[in-house]
Amino acid sequence: MADINSPLEIGVTTGPIRGSKKIYVGARTGSGVRVAMREIQLEGGEEPVRVYDTSGPYTDPEVSIDIQAGLPALRREWIMGRGDVEEYAARAVKPEDNGQLGPDRSGGVPAFPNVARTVLRAKPGQNVSQMHYARKGIITPEMEYVAERENVGRAKLETAPDGQAWGAEIPQEITPEFVRDEVARGRAIIPNNINHPETEPMAIGRNFLVKINANIGNSAVASDVAAEVDKMVWSIRWGADTVMDLSTGRNIHDTREWIIRNSPVPIGTVPIYQALEKVGGIAEDLTWDIFRDTLIEQAEQGVDYFTIHAGVRLPYVPMTAKRVTGIVSRGGSIMAKWCLAHHKESFLYERFDEITEIMKAYDIAYSLGDGLRPGSIADANDEAQFAELYTLGELTKRAWEQDVQVMIEGPGHVPMHKIKENMDKQLEACGEAPFYTLGPLVTDIAPGYDHITSGIGAAQIGWYGTAMLCYVTPKEHLGLPDRDDVKVGVVTYKLAAHAADLAKGHPAAKVRDDALSKARFEFRWRDQFNLSLDPDTAEQYHDQTLPAEGAKTAHFCSMCGPKFCSMKITQEVRDFAAKQNSDSYLASENIKRETSAEEAEEAREGMSDMAELYKAKGERLYLPESEAD
Amino acid sequence: MADINSPLEIGVTTGPIRGSKKIYVGARTGSGVRVAMREIQLEGGEEPVRVYDTSGPYTDPEVSIDIQAGLPALRREWIMGRGDVEEYAARAVKPEDNGQLGPDRSGGVPAFPNVARTVLRAKPGQNVSQMHYARKGIITPEMEYVAERENVGRAKLETAPDGQAWGAEIPQEITPEFVRDEVARGRAIIPNNINHPETEPMAIGRNFLVKINANIGNSAVASDVAAEVDKMVWSIRWGADTVMDLSTGRNIHDTREWIIRNSPVPIGTVPIYQALEKVGGIAEDLTWDIFRDTLIEQAEQGVDYFTIHAGVRLPYVPMTAKRVTGIVSRGGSIMAKWCLAHHKESFLYERFDEITEIMKAYDIAYSLGDGLRPGSIADANDEAQFAELYTLGELTKRAWEQDVQVMIEGPGHVPMHKIKENMDKQLEACGEAPFYTLGPLVTDIAPGYDHITSGIGAAQIGWYGTAMLCYVTPKEHLGLPDRDDVKVGVVTYKLAAHAADLAKGHPAAKVRDDALSKARFEFRWRDQFNLSLDPDTAEQYHDQTLPAEGAKTAHFCSMCGPKFCSMKITQEVRDFAAKQNSDSYLASENIKRETSAEEAEEAREGMSDMAELYKAKGERLYLPESEAD
Repeated sequence: MADINSPLEIGVTTGPIRGSKKIYVGARTGSGVRVAMREIQLEGGEEPVRVYDTSGPYTDPEVSIDIQAGLPALRREWIMGRGDVEEYAARAVKPEDNGQLGPDRSGGVPAFPNVARTVLRAKPGQNVSQMHYARKGIITPEMEYVAERENVGRAKLETAPDGQAWGAEIPQEITPEFVRDEVARGRAIIPNNINHPETEPMAIGRNFLVKINANIGNSAVASDVAAEVDKMVWSIRWGADTVMDLSTGRNIHDTREWIIRNSPVPIGTVPIYQALEKVGGIAEDLTWDIFRDTLIEQAEQGVDYFTIHAGVRLPYVPMTAKRVTGIVSRGGSIMAKWCLAHHKESFLYERFDEITEIMKAYDIAYSLGDGLRPGSIADANDEAQFAELYTLGELTKRAWEQDVQVMIEGPGHVPMHKIKENMDKQLEACGEAPFYTLGPLVTDIAPGYDHITSGIGAAQIGWYGTAMLCYVTPKEHLGLPDRDDVKVGVVTYKLAAHAADLAKGHPAAKVRDDALSKARFEFRWRDQFNLSLDPDTAEQYHDQTLPAEGAKTAHFCSMCGPKFCSMKITQEVRDFAAKQNSDSYLASENIKRETSAEEAEEAREGMSDMAELYKAKGERLYLPESEAD
Repeated sequence: MADINSPLEIGVTTGPIRGSKKIYVGARTGSGVRVAMREIQLEGGEEPVRVYDTSGPYTDPEVSIDIQAGLPALRREWIMGRGDVEEYAARAVKPEDNGQLGPDRSGGVPAFPNVARTVLRAKPGQNVSQMHYARKGIITPEMEYVAERENVGRAKLETAPDGQAWGAEIPQEITPEFVRDEVARGRAIIPNNINHPETEPMAIGRNFLVKINANIGNSAVASDVAAEVDKMVWSIRWGADTVMDLSTGRNIHDTREWIIRNSPVPIGTVPIYQALEKVGGIAEDLTWDIFRDTLIEQAEQGVDYFTIHAGVRLPYVPMTAKRVTGIVSRGGSIMAKWCLAHHKESFLYERFDEITEIMKAYDIAYSLGDGLRPGSIADANDEAQFAELYTLGELTKRAWEQDVQVMIEGPGHVPMHKIKENMDKQLEACGEAPFYTLGPLVTDIAPGYDHITSGIGAAQIGWYGTAMLCYVTPKEHLGLPDRDDVKVGVVTYKLAAHAADLAKGHPAAKVRDDALSKARFEFRWRDQFNLSLDPDTAEQYHDQTLPAEGAKTAHFCSMCGPKFCSMKITQEVRDFAAKQNSDSYLASENIKRETSAEEAEEAREGMSDMAELYKAKGERLYLPESEAD
């Protein structure tokens, strides 16, 4: 494992995504809030296409990036302006914070240079959660930012929304008031710890664009800090809306600091992982005090949401005994072991309200963990899983009593016919709190391709109403993802989330599909590449068959060759059809089983003059390569 | 393009898939029919798992492969034994058969050495289609073979089938009589031209395992014959149930001969492609005589199913004018152009019964082409698409009047919420004839990842009842697939088809998932690799993080590391839970919103003695790496 001897060794990818430029749109409220977006430039006088942008300042050539300094504190003024926070001396970093009790004491990581000596928390008696403001009727700059950000593409929409939303209520336009209302009722969350002012606010909720999360993090076995910071920046470049740092083993605290200070997206963690390190990996030695201290440690660093496995209750543990794969959640199994060892109810469950007190002092959102999620097709939708889900519903209401934001984690491994039941039960049990699922994988038999087995399930559950999809990489079940795996995982989940938005009839979704298809039809190859989720891969694949630069403007592609091209024929068909009144065909809404002889005759007459014209023109499909570009 | 100067230059991959061995199972009818299967050997005394095997003799080390000689004629005796065929002198190969009218006259391909001088067809007045035999109540050896083949894994089934079959009627066991009945009513087809006796019979139908097709074929722009034969063998190694040769340009006839003589799976073609070559690529110059001659040419070579775009009728062409991507089917646009140029009804539609006469003389199945399928999300489920579909339903019934087997091709590009309508309308319009779809792609914005955008749609429409899924590779829309793309496409579609079988509750499907998950839970890494769809990739990914051979028997993986492992904890949980009577939890069918205090108390009592025992044992999660292997 490579040590980082010089901070300079941390390199990340910067610069615009090809064919795109960074733009900033002012909130229509005139409040001065500027929202980052990406604009894809097109050829042939086509309107540029605006897309949702998660990449932060890294893709803005005007911004100079300094990993050692971290990102600018975009939200600092908004937070201070509310006058409900106090600055205090941060908790001192302890040796155990970096896992010095672990087996391996080597491989030190340099601390982040600009660690804040003072941090923020709510003044006594205050609650700084976005949900609290929302319920008081306050529209925060964060809500304004979200509203503008979610409106991407809405303006371009020409046709009426077309989809099956399964009960979601997606408005034609997102207003700041709509965002406030969704947050107030708990149907959406805006995770952003007041100690992570670098974030560009985003919302997770069933009536917003479906979001995706990328997991990163090192472990005692592999990976290092520089690589994790690079993976974070790399993952948001391709579309990760949030990032979870799942580090275990050594250097957890310092690794997290480097990541948070350089992240424009919300960062989530599973605090029990670090707490376990602090007790040498012995689950039964975990105590509330150690866990509480870990929450404070991470709250002060700026973690935006905590996965808390408070639903793994003592009575549910035996329900997993007859499973094929038992308990596959790390957090779930830690708590299961603790419960068995002490034959006591989970301290996370019993101290839940105390945890909530901490959450609201920093505006950290709950991601209530599904510690008993199924780890195989055989275990899907079983008693243990749903027992925990209904407990998470109970805890959601308790968190809401203190105006703390909540989302609910979901499976896992689920065959297609059992996916919808997961969504339906979650909506019922958790009062429409946002659902955040891992896939689900729809079969167990494809290790090495689980980004796909899970992408299939993710697209479906996203369509049914899941608000955020936790990505799975090709390395799932096999190893730790490298940079390439992270990109494949992110792009796969981006396309699954987009497919879900399309199927829900999201007004902003179809614009990009139509623009790309139009570019494809018109042989605007560069536009086709630039409009895609991964322009570099699209062009590279094209060039493997047709490397010539001319081929990018050629009116043919390698699938049919220059000699024959169906798209070219279609353009001819269109030219002719346009010349006749084809209303008789286009008008009829209901398709008949057979077209009657009369209709066929009508068609012949209607088109005879066109045919003469065609013969006269004597057009040919034949297109010599010399004329191709 | 590399010429093939010596036949020896054609190399293909042979030998068993790792961890598996080829076995042959005799039909229970005792007829002597031997069915090839693959058996995956497991460690730790686990029962081997039998899986459906499409790879043919290439994975049998006992068989010596000679590409120059072609495969043994497995079905020859069965065909001759029926006494309804006659041998006659094959049609002489003409220059235009190999596209000598094309622009490039170089790059010759050596003819297949052992071309049959005589071929088979039905005696005058006879009909040699499997549907004809089925309707006469005859169970053919082909039907016996299919029955045994489809029963893979049935015996291992312990639990009751669990799924949502959407009206499919999948029996617990497939009998030859069931196969006969499904073929007789047109709900399944067994494509196997009497001039392609090398095939191992397989069925395509809604009540059988979902099948996948791989497209190969060269074009004027790229690829060559040796590569195509290699791709065919490579694609069936990973699970392609049928292969379509979509070659265009030069050497079409010879390329096809090499492929058919060496293929143990049914081969499909689109005859209009070759017919177009024969008229120099000028669609309006196509005639019935040229097309008919091409059908005979390919029928004598042994093509098992023909894609015929007879549903592209004159009145439907203008319906495509306002589409975003018009007509994207090559065959569809050829016929559309012919119809417009002559302002006549399609000769494929008007000569349909004559085409059927040819089909039944060789037992070629129809794959009625969807020439008007949508090429973009914007065009999905439109008037043109469904107008054609209902015409295909009309043609299906006309083919069935002559006992000719039929399947129906489907889209294409369809957002998730419009997929089921495609299946429902196809079932209604086409009398349950097998549906054979290309994906569908659920979004247009991910070129380079369209094996995934389409795999999502394929899994869903397969679940709804589609019988065969035509694969899409990562190169879709961009270029011609190479060997690696073919493998990725096949494995992606294999997992999608399997996910569909699982969701339908197919009795044979879940066995493999359970075996792999059990191996995963028990850290039998090699079994986990060998049970997966792609053992080589699975092991390679594992080894990238943990190369040590010891790691393959280690009770940990790189995701959590040796220090902490949730699977290990679960085994401990199980040991303890097993010691107590947990029926009180496992019995309850309905999950309650909250677990009452009484239940929690009951649990504490029930487990207290276990906890004492646990303390006594003083077990630890801690697992030093030295103990890891």
